[in-house]
Amino acid sequence: MKIGIDILGGDFAPEANIAGAVLARKELPQDVRLVLIGDQDQILSGLNALNEDSAGYDIVHAPDVITMHDHPTRAIPNKPHSSIAVGFDLLARKEIDIFASTGNTGAMLVGAIYKINTIAGIIRPCITSVLPTVDGKNSILLDVGANADCKPDVLYQFAILGSLYAKCVYGVENPRVGLLNIGEEETKGNLLTIAAHKLMAESDEINFIGNVEGRDLFTGVADIIVCDGFTGNIALKQAEGIYTLMRKRGLRDEYFDRFNYENYGGTPILGVKGNVIIGHGISNDKAVRSMLLHSYEVAKSDLTKNINEAFNQ
Amino acid sequence: MKIGIDILGGDFAPEANIAGAVLARKELPQDVRLVLIGDQDQILSGLNALNEDSAGYDIVHAPDVITMHDHPTRAIPNKPHSSIAVGFDLLARKEIDIFASTGNTGAMLVGAIYKINTIAGIIRPCITSVLPTVDGKNSILLDVGANADCKPDVLYQFAILGSLYAKCVYGVENPRVGLLNIGEEETKGNLLTIAAHKLMAESDEINFIGNVEGRDLFTGVADIIVCDGFTGNIALKQAEGIYTLMRKRGLRDEYFDRFNYENYGGTPILGVKGNVIIGHGISNDKAVRSMLLHSYEVAKSDLTKNINEAFNQ
Repeated sequence: MKIGIDILGGDFAPEANIAGAVLARKELPQDVRLVLIGDQDQILSGLNALNEDSAGYDIVHAPDVITMHDHPTRAIPNKPHSSIAVGFDLLARKEIDIFASTGNTGAMLVGAIYKINTIAGIIRPCITSVLPTVDGKNSILLDVGANADCKPDVLYQFAILGSLYAKCVYGVENPRVGLLNIGEEETKGNLLTIAAHKLMAESDEINFIGNVEGRDLFTGVADIIVCDGFTGNIALKQAEGIYTLMRKRGLRDEYFDRFNYENYGGTPILGVKGNVIIGHGISNDKAVRSMLLHSYEVAKSDLTKNINEAFNQ
Repeated sequence: MKIGIDILGGDFAPEANIAGAVLARKELPQDVRLVLIGDQDQILSGLNALNEDSAGYDIVHAPDVITMHDHPTRAIPNKPHSSIAVGFDLLARKEIDIFASTGNTGAMLVGAIYKINTIAGIIRPCITSVLPTVDGKNSILLDVGANADCKPDVLYQFAILGSLYAKCVYGVENPRVGLLNIGEEETKGNLLTIAAHKLMAESDEINFIGNVEGRDLFTGVADIIVCDGFTGNIALKQAEGIYTLMRKRGLRDEYFDRFNYENYGGTPILGVKGNVIIGHGISNDKAVRSMLLHSYEVAKSDLTKNINEAFNQ
């Protein structure tokens, strides 16, 4: 297996990305090859600074950077030698099995959709986040920002995509799907969630448990929590914000320590034809390490193959 | 001034409501009269149990209860002798200056809109919540659930309503309005927030500071945070949920203790012709006390008069 990592994306690139790759390398199986995509000189000197033998890695030279200020849809065509553009080229040619980046999320989404393509039958690919729950497990929240406006059938597809992700990557049997809403009864909600509830309740493709509320995000009542990308992004950033405040105020415990993004590192774009992982822009070396370990789990899991089969059989 | 309180609404009625009224009575000015609306025998025996002289209160007999299971739009016509229906009758006849209840929120909204009426020019009345911020102040979040689906001009009106609330009741000069969104740039958001941003940015009626994100809900960057009622309700319940988890896990400090709903008690319905306060259904005596003290501030403030002038001059 070959895991491609963008060495130039993110706030602490290239140092954190190289150091994270070195950390992950120590934990990944020997037959997994890390492909470092970025400025070759920077990569070689970065590895050298860590006393790491460059022979343990593939290096693909991509000297240009897509920054946070680049326009998502224009960045890849405008910068064909950027690490993100080159990463997608490698993935499209199947020279890597998965491509992970902590760079410009918009550019990553655009690259995934236009260079790798959406799986037939999927209306809108989406991104997820993992919420630690008090029962020691996780809930998967989706969409968390790829699609600010959604139709009911799009939310319904998120439920299927999230279920496959939980099943294939986290080994959850028959994952429980909750719809994020403002009341438990099926009549509660906005136009979108009332219609989506109906689609989900009538389906036998998913294990729908009904509406869940804002207070249920961390209680583990559902394995998958479905919402539009606007709501999911607000909820996710609120959780990050409260966790940041708690840390600043010295309030910590075993459970809330699991909110640290370093533990997760990255999340797949669900619904595209290749394996693509997006990491947090503020990733340090530990977060990059987690992103690469998760990339391995995703690539190993045949998630993309399973999604393709679910939508095309 | 006369403050009407529904003695029968809420999970711990009538005991908590009577006890809360007795607590508030001790702190309110002598010329403020509390009007207890509910079953007269229950009220008298409740006051008696607390060794409280019933002569210190007005009592209006209303023996019927609208429960959480009653349908919001049918409850008031179906139960004309309920405490909520009688409370609105008193308010409509101006026999009380403000009506406060911890009962069925839907019935309270319906009563406010149909028995008291929306102020001319207001598209949709709304409800607010107070978010404690780390700078020791508060942000006012609105709408938090009255309007699950909103148009851009409705969000724009929420900005005006919230600004007047902050100014009249909390004494905030030139309150800063933020639009809850998924990015700082004006191009970010869903169709609703992108259009609302434009309306707000072009206005000189409000002090618009731009988009705020989920992580800004508690940092005090804005005095008013505007969103649709779906998003606001999810955000509010998430905050309550995290606070509940923190309490259960013994994580407390001065700042997060301010999340306790007992400190707020209730919030006005903004945009109707009378003063109406909605409290939390789980209110205990302390929360009822806070609701009544806040009712006093709202009634004293001429908030409703100011809203009417803002929309009709």
